[in-house]
Amino acid sequence: MTFFDRLKAASAADWHSYVDHAFVRQMGEGTLPQPAFRHYLVQDYLFLIQFARAYALAIYKSPSLGDMRQALAGVKAILDMEMDLHVELCAGWGLSRTDLERAREERQTMAYTRFVLDAGGQGDLLDLMVALAPCVLGYAEIGRRLAATPRGLDPANPYARWVAEYSSEGYQEVAAGFAAWLDRIAADYATPARQPRLEHLFAQASVLEADFWQMGLEAA
Amino acid sequence: MTFFDRLKAASAADWHSYVDHAFVRQMGEGTLPQPAFRHYLVQDYLFLIQFARAYALAIYKSPSLGDMRQALAGVKAILDMEMDLHVELCAGWGLSRTDLERAREERQTMAYTRFVLDAGGQGDLLDLMVALAPCVLGYAEIGRRLAATPRGLDPANPYARWVAEYSSEGYQEVAAGFAAWLDRIAADYATPARQPRLEHLFAQASVLEADFWQMGLEAA
Amino acid sequence: MTFFDRLKAASAADWHSYVDHAFVRQMGEGTLPQPAFRHYLVQDYLFLIQFARAYALAIYKSPSLGDMRQALAGVKAILDMEMDLHVELCAGWGLSRTDLERAREERQTMAYTRFVLDAGGQGDLLDLMVALAPCVLGYAEIGRRLAATPRGLDPANPYARWVAEYSSEGYQEVAAGFAAWLDRIAADYATPARQPRLEHLFAQASVLEADFWQMGLEAA
Amino acid sequence: MTFFDRLKAASAADWHSYVDHAFVRQMGEGTLPQPAFRHYLVQDYLFLIQFARAYALAIYKSPSLGDMRQALAGVKAILDMEMDLHVELCAGWGLSRTDLERAREERQTMAYTRFVLDAGGQGDLLDLMVALAPCVLGYAEIGRRLAATPRGLDPANPYARWVAEYSSEGYQEVAAGFAAWLDRIAADYATPARQPRLEHLFAQASVLEADFWQMGLEAA
Repeated sequence: MTFFDRLKAASAADWHSYVDHAFVRQMGEGTLPQPAFRHYLVQDYLFLIQFARAYALAIYKSPSLGDMRQALAGVKAILDMEMDLHVELCAGWGLSRTDLERAREERQTMAYTRFVLDAGGQGDLLDLMVALAPCVLGYAEIGRRLAATPRGLDPANPYARWVAEYSSEGYQEVAAGFAAWLDRIAADYATPARQPRLEHLFAQASVLEADFWQMGLEAA
Repeated sequence: MTFFDRLKAASAADWHSYVDHAFVRQMGEGTLPQPAFRHYLVQDYLFLIQFARAYALAIYKSPSLGDMRQALAGVKAILDMEMDLHVELCAGWGLSRTDLERAREERQTMAYTRFVLDAGGQGDLLDLMVALAPCVLGYAEIGRRLAATPRGLDPANPYARWVAEYSSEGYQEVAAGFAAWLDRIAADYATPARQPRLEHLFAQASVLEADFWQMGLEAA
Repeated sequence: MTFFDRLKAASAADWHSYVDHAFVRQMGEGTLPQPAFRHYLVQDYLFLIQFARAYALAIYKSPSLGDMRQALAGVKAILDMEMDLHVELCAGWGLSRTDLERAREERQTMAYTRFVLDAGGQGDLLDLMVALAPCVLGYAEIGRRLAATPRGLDPANPYARWVAEYSSEGYQEVAAGFAAWLDRIAADYATPARQPRLEHLFAQASVLEADFWQMGLEAA
Repeated sequence: MTFFDRLKAASAADWHSYVDHAFVRQMGEGTLPQPAFRHYLVQDYLFLIQFARAYALAIYKSPSLGDMRQALAGVKAILDMEMDLHVELCAGWGLSRTDLERAREERQTMAYTRFVLDAGGQGDLLDLMVALAPCVLGYAEIGRRLAATPRGLDPANPYARWVAEYSSEGYQEVAAGFAAWLDRIAADYATPARQPRLEHLFAQASVLEADFWQMGLEAA
């Protein structure tokens, strides 16, 4: 049982409200209203900027050179790759780079991202990673789950590319690497006394991720 | 024109959505459903804890001993006084200390408080103070405004004590002190190039404060 | 055996280089050259400013309200009391407040204080407290030790007042409170895997404290 | 006149104590005792780890995506390139990776690096960059200066490779990029009121860099 499995087990209801959210199911079925997805895409661009800051904070907080390199891989993945992929994906949905840069950051975007950043400022690398986990590992779980549904990867599903991206070997490896890193950090830093607080951080982050999907739905 | 006046002028719509929120007007009229107020009170307790952390961050970030002492006054006001007043006020509404400590932090509480804390971590003392201003100075403005309405301080208004607290000379002086401090810090640190970003921080914080009232209303 | 005892035992040589430093022994014997003490006093004023920032960081990083209050007591002790005592003590040595404020911060002052602040930024509250411990708890140990020497509290010893201050019941209680708090935080956050790093932090901080005494000696 | 030129002009004596240090001149003449250089090399390895943390903090504190990418280039230059070059350079001097990893961090190494990190934590990106500048830009100035001396690049000079590295087009471009970035950030964030404090930060950092050379000399 990985540390991530323990966190999920302790927050099952909150976790499911996130990974089984109507937004997710409708992506898998191809029935999600397109304005919902477009709104999500724009906010996800702003989200990625804050997530790059969170991984940079992880470099700063890393207790060893190995941890620093692991966190740097996260910053590079976002700033050198994902942001460009995102701009390209947005272009396919008629959203220009200028649309992205001019967009107003929604409260749900602020809520989750600033929560993660503060978890890192207040605590140590383990706190920061636990707050990041619902995003990094949740997207991998959602990707796998939707890829296994009848319409998830169907070319007729307008969201098939999103599903393909997060179910891809590349992303699954990134997530597996993060989970293994979390296990190593938890092995050194987790204690029984910290467990309730870590589980609470994970649950709060899961709720804020669910809110992020909800924000998309409500834009439709 | 104070720096706070400039910020308000630049974010008039967001500012009014906060200080003129239905929750506020209904407090002034005494028509606010009591469950809304009770829910607000509980969350405000959790809010104060994070606000004490934000003032502590302001001590850490202060460029001079005078600024450190000013920020320390904020931490002391919260931890040595307001939290106890709050517990007492809650007791009058049938909420025990245990109720407060066991309460789950709402997303709107997390959203505003972590936003403020991250504004301080990312930037300098001026950024942090601009993000704090809607709370510190907005409550003073709301207190004054409601105290001037026919029912604001009417003993029959169940919210008269809240109005009395924030319109009191004591709180008004705290707020005036903060505004004067903000003017001094802005005189040294604000630049025309920073102005749009500072105004944006203030607008975002105002929106998140409005959401906090809305959270109360929706609990009723 | 307290957590502090464990840290000292693991860093015995570095610890003794600090608490048994020639500067300390010469204070106890009253033989310390007065320019050495005056130089130390001025730098200790600048040191206290940074230490207040470190305790403020401890409030920000505290995982509970009780910890926040404990750390706040530290900030208040410095900003509301010790700094004024310090100015008064300096006046007795012919050093004005202006002398203190105009003094250039020495590299040894920067070295220890910034080390503590960064330990807190990089890690959690336990890391920060371990880096603070040589100062808070070392001064108590030095005070007790010197008070027990023949000339430590002798009114003819020009440093008797310093010895009296740090051997006083008041200061000893502050130190005992810090040690008990450290035990509680260590009970929740320390792990066998963290122990070498915590001991290393403590050893580094002890070395930097010894350097601070050495800076005084070299000014004579 | 660049912002860096202004900082140097305001701290001329401290700046010269660093860039004209005896360690530097002796490297240029090839007369530096080899144990001095070896000691420096080992500490510089530990220094780079903290500098990567400082650039990561710069990503976290960046107000725009462009600034984040600029700071990321600094982290990558250190973690993906310079550390390996350093290990290789050390190998040429008979120092193994294990020697580097086991080395005890000297007080001068701690002093400068933690000072930079705290400057960033306390202030904004401009404060952090001003504290980083003596290292990034000073090495470029030293490299150019030594390359222009008769023995600087002479293959018989055991330190010619060091001189070649920092006078190389590659490093000079990195430094020019940093100086241009500093100009942009200063254009937006510097104010006349901040100038004395920024100059003081720069002077302190220059003194701590000079101490770092001195540490090397004293090891011989």
